[in-house]
Amino acid sequence: MDLAIEDVDDLCVGAALLGAGGGGDPYIGGLIVKRELAAGRRIRIVDPDDLADDRLVIPTAMMGAPTVLLEKIPSGEEPIRALQAVEAQLGRTADATMPTEVGGINSTIPLFVAARLGIPVVDADGQGRAFPELQMETFAILGVAGTPMGIADEKGDVATLSIEDHHRMEWIARGITIRFGGTAYFANYPMSGAEVKRSSVKHTLTLATRIGGILRTARSGRRDPFEALTEFLATTHYSAARRVFSGKIVDVDRQTREGFTLGATTIDGGPDGRCTIDFQNENLVARADGEVLAIVPDIIAVLDAETALPITNETLRYGQRVAVLAIRVPEIMRSPAALKQFGPAAFGLAETYVPLAADGD
Amino acid sequence: MDLAIEDVDDLCVGAALLGAGGGGDPYIGGLIVKRELAAGRRIRIVDPDDLADDRLVIPTAMMGAPTVLLEKIPSGEEPIRALQAVEAQLGRTADATMPTEVGGINSTIPLFVAARLGIPVVDADGQGRAFPELQMETFAILGVAGTPMGIADEKGDVATLSIEDHHRMEWIARGITIRFGGTAYFANYPMSGAEVKRSSVKHTLTLATRIGGILRTARSGRRDPFEALTEFLATTHYSAARRVFSGKIVDVDRQTREGFTLGATTIDGGPDGRCTIDFQNENLVARADGEVLAIVPDIIAVLDAETALPITNETLRYGQRVAVLAIRVPEIMRSPAALKQFGPAAFGLAETYVPLAADGD
Repeated sequence: MDLAIEDVDDLCVGAALLGAGGGGDPYIGGLIVKRELAAGRRIRIVDPDDLADDRLVIPTAMMGAPTVLLEKIPSGEEPIRALQAVEAQLGRTADATMPTEVGGINSTIPLFVAARLGIPVVDADGQGRAFPELQMETFAILGVAGTPMGIADEKGDVATLSIEDHHRMEWIARGITIRFGGTAYFANYPMSGAEVKRSSVKHTLTLATRIGGILRTARSGRRDPFEALTEFLATTHYSAARRVFSGKIVDVDRQTREGFTLGATTIDGGPDGRCTIDFQNENLVARADGEVLAIVPDIIAVLDAETALPITNETLRYGQRVAVLAIRVPEIMRSPAALKQFGPAAFGLAETYVPLAADGD
Repeated sequence: MDLAIEDVDDLCVGAALLGAGGGGDPYIGGLIVKRELAAGRRIRIVDPDDLADDRLVIPTAMMGAPTVLLEKIPSGEEPIRALQAVEAQLGRTADATMPTEVGGINSTIPLFVAARLGIPVVDADGQGRAFPELQMETFAILGVAGTPMGIADEKGDVATLSIEDHHRMEWIARGITIRFGGTAYFANYPMSGAEVKRSSVKHTLTLATRIGGILRTARSGRRDPFEALTEFLATTHYSAARRVFSGKIVDVDRQTREGFTLGATTIDGGPDGRCTIDFQNENLVARADGEVLAIVPDIIAVLDAETALPITNETLRYGQRVAVLAIRVPEIMRSPAALKQFGPAAFGLAETYVPLAADGD
């Protein structure tokens, strides 16, 4: 299926929502992709289940602090150079690329790469949302090697890593990203079609596009966007979603440190008290009155109270009226091995993961 | 010429002296090489002037804080993996290796690599002493590309860099070295035989061996080692050497920070007052009574007052009786371009470089 230019904004909005506050601004991501399509290039999206087992898929993405990205616009060639560094190490060219996560920017980087290289994008990813670190991938959990990994900056510099341990790959790549100036583009987890089918969170590009479409339709006045969204998500592998808090943003504590955007958002809900959301690029836990409303790996998205459009953490501002939507993640992301990689303890949180209950649960 | 096991200690002592307080401990370097020779492996040293123009030479070395090296012994394969990463990028195997600097450890790493791979070592290097940073190389000054560069740690991890700017290569490689745990092994500045002849400081392995031999002979009681050393150096391209201070070490301020060993040594000279030597891995400037005794790029070596054996900065201790020997570096290291790369200003020092005057000057 070819990506239509009319679908790009929907895809970016849905991806930003699933990005849980991180994953970069959907506006920039959308611009990048629409420019390619307007120039007559094709972007073909393929179903992971249709991939031949022996195909080589090389995922591509951006890493670093989204706050920095706003001031450090890419030249465009970075993720392609990163992918080519991996190809050179493997001595083989990629048959397709794929997102590593869902997010405003990181859902679109592979689309850009695909347009430029004339290869398809697989409709799947390794996080089913956005997470801040490279080892937090279903790919890693299900036995895919993280390297060779290519990392490129906007100056034409490229680093190639060959590191066995997934955490150490993250540690070294993060160090390089910091010294590259805070953001970098990368390609890692090169894998076979068989590995994609076994280890990915499937159909997340089409899911994001559907979410964006539902919000757009609701905006045009026919229904409550939260109701429409919740109803739709219940029919997907993201089996449950619920608005867990509403109010006005009264504080955003945000720092760029260690290569991440770190901080907390406080929302005043009037009679409902206050809700605080801790984040490391992505929202990790939402608490109100000492009670956990939602926690990783479940998705915590801060949305505009009226339109349900997602607000990424680098654009949160005092006074915005918002609603907090929590979404239960698919089964593949809730196994004991998955929780070890990106459950509460992986972020230093003491609470145990309890999957979000749906309204009807 | 084959390196003889009897020459190894001389080479390491001389290299530690030319290492200007840095470059790593000569004892560890000597052990590594003697083990190879005792196992029956050959180490062939070739004169740079005898190299065919089209030969591929890949220098190998260690980087990081020498203080850390004392506690983090290499597995042995690291510099070989770094060199092989460069070979893979170039699609060609090395005809020889070479030191990047002179120093207790870094003069011996290429000898080890040569023994294991059965390739010769070129009798030359890119610093004519030791310097703390990767862009501080006559190779860089005379137009040799720094990358592809391979960096390896003791866990089997390898990073390969492709970076045009020499300072940025240093910045990124230093960041990786810090995250690798403080030390790493590398191969960079791959070059042709023609480039070696044009850009290297020549015959520094044989020079180090001669220096070690002179000190050993003097120790056996026949002459004053400082006199013997000064007399010999005057006949080499290091045209002048002089004992600029003597006394007792009364303070060593030493920190491991930003991937370097940083600090200052204070020597009490009794009636001669106090001498302070600032270092960043290597000694940068020796001052007494507000006067500069010697300054980079000239070599400042702290030697045992009796034996003239060099004391590297990580082994300096309170109470040691020492003499400070200054050595004027060869012409190739004193050009305006060279001083820009490793003269006083490159280290943030305000003083102008004045080459050391010989006693007879």
